[in-house]
Amino acid sequence: MSWKVYLSGEIHTDWREQIIKAAGAAGLPIEFSSAVTDHGASDAAGDVLGEEQNGFWRDHKSAKVNAIRTKTQLEQCDLAVVRFGDKYKQWNAAFDAGFCAALGKPYITLHSEDIIHPLKEVDGAAMAWAQTPEQVVQVLKYICREK
Amino acid sequence: MSWKVYLSGEIHTDWREQIIKAAGAAGLPIEFSSAVTDHGASDAAGDVLGEEQNGFWRDHKSAKVNAIRTKTQLEQCDLAVVRFGDKYKQWNAAFDAGFCAALGKPYITLHSEDIIHPLKEVDGAAMAWAQTPEQVVQVLKYICREK
Amino acid sequence: MSWKVYLSGEIHTDWREQIIKAAGAAGLPIEFSSAVTDHGASDAAGDVLGEEQNGFWRDHKSAKVNAIRTKTQLEQCDLAVVRFGDKYKQWNAAFDAGFCAALGKPYITLHSEDIIHPLKEVDGAAMAWAQTPEQVVQVLKYICREK
Amino acid sequence: MSWKVYLSGEIHTDWREQIIKAAGAAGLPIEFSSAVTDHGASDAAGDVLGEEQNGFWRDHKSAKVNAIRTKTQLEQCDLAVVRFGDKYKQWNAAFDAGFCAALGKPYITLHSEDIIHPLKEVDGAAMAWAQTPEQVVQVLKYICREK
Amino acid sequence: MSWKVYLSGEIHTDWREQIIKAAGAAGLPIEFSSAVTDHGASDAAGDVLGEEQNGFWRDHKSAKVNAIRTKTQLEQCDLAVVRFGDKYKQWNAAFDAGFCAALGKPYITLHSEDIIHPLKEVDGAAMAWAQTPEQVVQVLKYICREK
Amino acid sequence: MSWKVYLSGEIHTDWREQIIKAAGAAGLPIEFSSAVTDHGASDAAGDVLGEEQNGFWRDHKSAKVNAIRTKTQLEQCDLAVVRFGDKYKQWNAAFDAGFCAALGKPYITLHSEDIIHPLKEVDGAAMAWAQTPEQVVQVLKYICREK
Amino acid sequence: MSWKVYLSGEIHTDWREQIIKAAGAAGLPIEFSSAVTDHGASDAAGDVLGEEQNGFWRDHKSAKVNAIRTKTQLEQCDLAVVRFGDKYKQWNAAFDAGFCAALGKPYITLHSEDIIHPLKEVDGAAMAWAQTPEQVVQVLKYICREK
Amino acid sequence: MSWKVYLSGEIHTDWREQIIKAAGAAGLPIEFSSAVTDHGASDAAGDVLGEEQNGFWRDHKSAKVNAIRTKTQLEQCDLAVVRFGDKYKQWNAAFDAGFCAALGKPYITLHSEDIIHPLKEVDGAAMAWAQTPEQVVQVLKYICREK
Repeated sequence: MSWKVYLSGEIHTDWREQIIKAAGAAGLPIEFSSAVTDHGASDAAGDVLGEEQNGFWRDHKSAKVNAIRTKTQLEQCDLAVVRFGDKYKQWNAAFDAGFCAALGKPYITLHSEDIIHPLKEVDGAAMAWAQTPEQVVQVLKYICREK
Repeated sequence: MSWKVYLSGEIHTDWREQIIKAAGAAGLPIEFSSAVTDHGASDAAGDVLGEEQNGFWRDHKSAKVNAIRTKTQLEQCDLAVVRFGDKYKQWNAAFDAGFCAALGKPYITLHSEDIIHPLKEVDGAAMAWAQTPEQVVQVLKYICREK
Repeated sequence: MSWKVYLSGEIHTDWREQIIKAAGAAGLPIEFSSAVTDHGASDAAGDVLGEEQNGFWRDHKSAKVNAIRTKTQLEQCDLAVVRFGDKYKQWNAAFDAGFCAALGKPYITLHSEDIIHPLKEVDGAAMAWAQTPEQVVQVLKYICREK
Repeated sequence: MSWKVYLSGEIHTDWREQIIKAAGAAGLPIEFSSAVTDHGASDAAGDVLGEEQNGFWRDHKSAKVNAIRTKTQLEQCDLAVVRFGDKYKQWNAAFDAGFCAALGKPYITLHSEDIIHPLKEVDGAAMAWAQTPEQVVQVLKYICREK
Repeated sequence: MSWKVYLSGEIHTDWREQIIKAAGAAGLPIEFSSAVTDHGASDAAGDVLGEEQNGFWRDHKSAKVNAIRTKTQLEQCDLAVVRFGDKYKQWNAAFDAGFCAALGKPYITLHSEDIIHPLKEVDGAAMAWAQTPEQVVQVLKYICREK
Repeated sequence: MSWKVYLSGEIHTDWREQIIKAAGAAGLPIEFSSAVTDHGASDAAGDVLGEEQNGFWRDHKSAKVNAIRTKTQLEQCDLAVVRFGDKYKQWNAAFDAGFCAALGKPYITLHSEDIIHPLKEVDGAAMAWAQTPEQVVQVLKYICREK
Repeated sequence: MSWKVYLSGEIHTDWREQIIKAAGAAGLPIEFSSAVTDHGASDAAGDVLGEEQNGFWRDHKSAKVNAIRTKTQLEQCDLAVVRFGDKYKQWNAAFDAGFCAALGKPYITLHSEDIIHPLKEVDGAAMAWAQTPEQVVQVLKYICREK
Repeated sequence: MSWKVYLSGEIHTDWREQIIKAAGAAGLPIEFSSAVTDHGASDAAGDVLGEEQNGFWRDHKSAKVNAIRTKTQLEQCDLAVVRFGDKYKQWNAAFDAGFCAALGKPYITLHSEDIIHPLKEVDGAAMAWAQTPEQVVQVLKYICREK
């Protein structure tokens, strides 16, 4: 079988590219998806629908346009990888994890050891905790084994 | 009809008490629920099942014991209020919001104006954004109106 | 068994009161619910969360606050009665009917004969079409019969 | 990934063709679907099953035959675009929007500014409000971006 | 716990009364429900909504009014008993059994030995086959045991 | 889009072949499925698992083996056609109709006019009633139209 | 809120009584349920429906009658405790755990340390592993805390 | 149609190979899946995520990594075959059967006659009981018949 894997969270490092590249090199039958990771484009996703003067509503419109894409991708994926970096709040990553948990959809968290405690609920509902993209790739290879 | 309202998020201020007290004073037919809000007790929820030397697994065990309660309460509530304070990561609050979103369960976010941008996905899927507990109470009064 | 009946649609005539009163007089074990039917209050439902200068967003906020109530009531009802009057667009009534249809929840339409054609899709998914509140009450009496 | 987009509502202008053509020109991986938009054929959809003398039942039969198609397409689509024009009641469009809302399926409304208020519940549950087919196409392009 | 038991099928013998009476005598915590079993009233259920000259549509209207009641009761019951007598087609009984099967709701068939073969699909999805109301009562007593 | 259509019921006339042939001739994008229609093979479906001396259990085993196929096909189809002939009990056809109804899956009944009354519940939940295979084919052509 | 807790598994020691008694003594708002734990009665649950000469079918009939009770109780419980003792195969306990896992229903396993390895899949999907009934009671007390 | 069949349980005999080979030889349109059946690899599935000193947690991590694969495969299969051999506890096989039962997914048990009694609940919810891989293949051939 082939797998659909959604990559959620941090957009400021190249962890997605590392995973996609390694999976491709290993010939894994995986189709990856993710939110639009161009920060500026993502923040401006709703601008085409009309300018907003109020910051809240500009964010609101863009968040909903982005959600058309991300909610659909999350609902259709077989597995999500949720990355927490060391900068920013990253509440959307935790939001995606909760979304998966409610749907009974498996997800792997990817974060360093120093944020274990604040992530305990998110990790508690995860199927695995990885510290590096390489570990995620190892898990992906395992679940795609022939036998 | 009566309502079940789950109160999620920040445990270091008295926002829950303010809402519960005001709702009670107004005679609203609401049953409130929430995670165990005693921080120490929550972190130690799994200790009774055996000591752990590894921090990750202690957190893991406690998070799962807590989830028995919180997942059930979230699934049974009609509405959640999700509070983001100005301290700590509060990923569990965002996680609960995502959980509600996936179930199509309405939630209200409660946070100050300065964190609008990092919360845009969470607010985008919410039914309302309130800045004060008083506003939440006003909304609760409204949804409980006779006609 | 007791029944939960949601009354959706037109708010400018007293059809709700007629049904509720007649059901009460007949001792039917029915709990009725509906949106807030005070037009001004409904339009202003979101105002407590902060003033809006843009009409679209004021409506948006109020519609979402109202939806906390109406979506929950619709999901919990056993039967809906959806009333189309001869004034206004009443798209929210058709919206509620579609909502019920998707959930497999039975609903009765209540409208006069002259709008049969534009309502054909809405009537096509309904369990019954009534032209008067008295007919709705007769159906309610029937479904509540002892045997 | 590819997308399935259902186009609901007004059948008297060429908004569907505009969207389909522009999406095709841009090479978007989208499969569009919609109700039968030939008004006469749609009204006569049930005639093959036997003539009816009563207008209500003719409409009823045709509405149900049409629903075999539209309900299935709506349930299978990833996104719906719901168009409200300035003529006719268009209750079926609002019905489709409610249907999507109940299933948690994202939809975009497409209508001019002068009907914001009567559509507030329908817009309140939508992921976006567009005023022109071009804006819809822009949103479709965005959700189909590579990254 | 208390049980909700739906009694489906044959309306020309007193099998329902036998079961209800025996369950009551044994003090079983069971709430029974069923379709309206007055044949004439059931056939006329839709007449209040307007006379029909066409037999098919009269039946159609009445069947839908009846379904408001029966579909809700079936969806809410914990267990159904489906009775097939030796007269009439009784397709509605088989329909109810299929309805339960699709919802994963347990049901018991109640019929004599001579119709085993035509009922094999219906019995194949049942949790038990009883030949007498007394046997059904015995099963009900068993599932209501203290321990 | 392509359609999956399940053909349920009577196995003693060639109505399936008529529909499949006409649909093929018209180039409709439909994949048909059905139970094993070889009566002897169907009754013996469970024999390979061991002989049974008791008729009830032989039927039971075969019915369950058949259900592996039919339940899966029904759950995966977009539309069912349920045929009632003028011989035999055909409870399995009514069972399939109830199964579809519970899943919200559209179905068309196919039967002659003289059994309208005993089939009123089954027809009441159907999307259409056809009297001939030709009419079914016409409906299939309609739902497969380009626009 | 009150809780419904299902007690699954081993019937040869008094672990159920220990938990129920301690929960009662602590005034926990819990309603317990379980399969019929009288081994002989459970094996004979189907005998009232007619004698069987074949052991497989006697077991089959009784298992299905028991499942009417246990499946309903499992589906309605908020939490299950699944006990594995040191005798017998206890496949029904593992079956119940899998049933809970598929429904996203939390469960606690209760077993000694020496069977950790063969139970790793069952424990992997559990919310907690307890070694004694006392630990289970401690967890129940925790999830029933006021705050 | 093509079928997805999940093969669960015993990993110490070649029953999977027998079934897959015979199905292939017969040209059945079946895609088989299963857990990783290399015992050592399965036990070590989580090791890549970091060494554990505690046996319980090593098993826990590996069980969860394995569950990413098996839960997804089970949820996507149309049919499962669950094999119980005569060695080991095989609680994971019973767990998979319960998982299928809760999802309404058909499964066939495969085991010898001497463990009928301890497997009665698992067999009671199964669609068939086979004693040999050959019998399973016969059933697969039957459900894949043309007509």
